[in-house]
Formats: sequence, structure tokens, C-alpha cells
Amino acid sequence: MPPQRIYLAGPEVFLANAKEVGEEKKALCRKYGFEGVFPIDVEVKAEGKSPREFGLCISDVNEGLIRSCQIVIANLTPFRGPSADVGTVYELGFSHALGKLVLAYTNLAESFTERTAKALGGRVKRGADGLLRDGLGMFIEENCLIDNLMIDGCLNANSKLLIVEQAPAGELFSWLGGFEKCLAAAKKLTSKGT
Amino acid sequence: MPPQRIYLAGPEVFLANAKEVGEEKKALCRKYGFEGVFPIDVEVKAEGKSPREFGLCISDVNEGLIRSCQIVIANLTPFRGPSADVGTVYELGFSHALGKLVLAYTNLAESFTERTAKALGGRVKRGADGLLRDGLGMFIEENCLIDNLMIDGCLNANSKLLIVEQAPAGELFSWLGGFEKCLAAAKKLTSKGT
Repeated sequence: MPPQRIYLAGPEVFLANAKEVGEEKKALCRKYGFEGVFPIDVEVKAEGKSPREFGLCISDVNEGLIRSCQIVIANLTPFRGPSADVGTVYELGFSHALGKLVLAYTNLAESFTERTAKALGGRVKRGADGLLRDGLGMFIEENCLIDNLMIDGCLNANSKLLIVEQAPAGELFSWLGGFEKCLAAAKKLTSKGT
Repeated sequence: MPPQRIYLAGPEVFLANAKEVGEEKKALCRKYGFEGVFPIDVEVKAEGKSPREFGLCISDVNEGLIRSCQIVIANLTPFRGPSADVGTVYELGFSHALGKLVLAYTNLAESFTERTAKALGGRVKRGADGLLRDGLGMFIEENCLIDNLMIDGCLNANSKLLIVEQAPAGELFSWLGGFEKCLAAAKKLTSKGT
């Protein structure tokens, strides 16, 4: 039997050393008996394409890679705002709907409500209805979840695996402690009954 | 034949007058021969549930509502950061994978690259490799797309319908001009050959 394939979703593709982090993740996958698939494994050539065509082509390749995998591990560490990277979140919804086994981790332990209030520069106010609201009067979730409820809901309905751990300073997007816990859990979940 | 059902995804559920905006959207759906389904149409009771259980229950209800619809129109207006609301983006990926007809609009016409640079307080720098990077060295997409390439890629692979228009001042999350254009397009797309 070939090893099961895991799509490695996360904002680390934006890092200057993205390839290196991808190789580290794939080495860890092998350690647990899996084949890791990193989004930038397939090189999309920019030549002859407009920036728009180039971007759309990468999206197409990534959706194909997800379809080719049995498992997805998503890095939900907040990225340029209080929430996870939207590209990763898109892939989470896409994967869950396709029936993939989905697990996730975040390298930031701070609560979603606190992160949101901080991102809004503290300009939040509790309304007469008891809800915390931003400057536009839009409420802020206080459900003790790690991000928007659709994200936690996905993982709760899927693997129930969402590792929350604080990365060491300076390693927010490259630390793999939570990721390795997902791999251990994936191994346990997929070897059940075999 | 009952009218086709459209799930109305977007961050307007966070507005103080969310119900009102939902009713306006549903009235517009009827005008075009559709039945609009707004996420908060199904009231989830908070009593007897922990905040966490309450949040997860809403997610479960929303996924069920999406499954019950044939069409999804997503409001991708940037929300608390340079990108669209992650809950909406999750639903976009989920809906596309399920084969729903997906259309979208954004009420902010500013480019994604500019929005990102602004959200980073202008702390961006072009690296030796030609890529624009943030303070952590993570690159910023410059693909002339409206958001992360997975989002544009989804719509390009699906309906090809993504309306970008600037809302009047103060109406960023409630303006329905772009939304109505999606409805007109959905009507055209679904009545083909009938």
C-alpha cells in the first residue's frame, strides 16, 4: 500500500524559506508513515502568463493536490489579522466538503476575542444587548473558540483535532511542534482497526 | 418547480441590523425568482449550551443550510483585515467542493496588494528576488486579483462571477448593488437552455 498523502495547508508558503519549511514538514510526514504534499511542490511557471493567469493557475494546481490527498493538516496560525490565512481557510472548507480527514493546529495560544480586540486597536464596546461590538457596531464572537466558528465547527465535525500551542518567540510560522502532534493523531486515526 | 435556494454568505451577519439586511437580501432574491437563505434565519438557542457548544451548533446549522441550497452568493468585502471574512471564505471553499453554483461580490474596489500594505502599516519592502515582503519576510501577492489567489481561483473555476464595486461611504457592509448584479447573473446562468 502506498503511504497516505497529506496536503500541508498553511501560510508558511509565504516565508522566504518556504521550501525549507516544506521539506521539514515532509520529513516529519515520512517519520509517521505519510507522504507530505506541500503546495509549492508543483512549480508553476510564470513565463508567458499574466500575473492574474499565474495566480489562477496556482489555485488550480492546489485544488488538484488537495483532491489527490486523503488527509489535510492546516496551519491556522493567525496571519495579517486576527484570523487564520484565508487561503488556508478556503482549503479547509474545500477539504472538509470533499470528505478528507482534516486536522489543524495554531501556533498562537491567545484567544480569538482578544486577538480581534487587539487588531481593532482596542476600539470595542459592549452594547446594551451584551455583545462586544467594533466601531461599525459589528459584533465580535465570544464563543471560546480559536477562530471564526465555521473553522472550529469544521474540525469538531471532522477529526476533532485542533492543536493550540504557543510557538517559541520568532518561530510563529515555522515552528512544527503542533504540526507533529497532528501527525501523531492522524497516524492513530488512520490505523484504527488495522 | 420550487424556486432555487441561494445561501447568502457574508460578514453582514455581524451587523447590529443583520436581520434587516438579511430581509433586504431575501426580498431581492424573490425579485429574481430565487429563495434567499440567510445564515441567521435558523435561530439557535443559547440556553443550556456553553458558548463553545453554541458556536459549534451555529456552524453545523450553516453547513446544513449550504447543503440545502443550489447556489451561494458570497460577500467578500474585506473584514477586520486585508482579506474577506474567514467564515465566508470557509463557506466558499465548502460550497465549491460540493458543486454549488458560487458567485461573489466585494464592496471595496481597492486592490488586494494595496490593502495588505496598508494593513501592515506600510511596513513592506521589495526583496532582492523582486517580491514585496512584510516585516517577517513573508511575501505579498501581486497577482492583480481581488484577494488570496484561492478565492479568485474558486470563482474563476466556478461561475466566473466576481463583482467588484465601491460601496457609497458608510455602507461597506450593507450596500447591495454588487449583490444584485450577482442575482441577475445567477438568473441568467440558471435559466440557460430552459
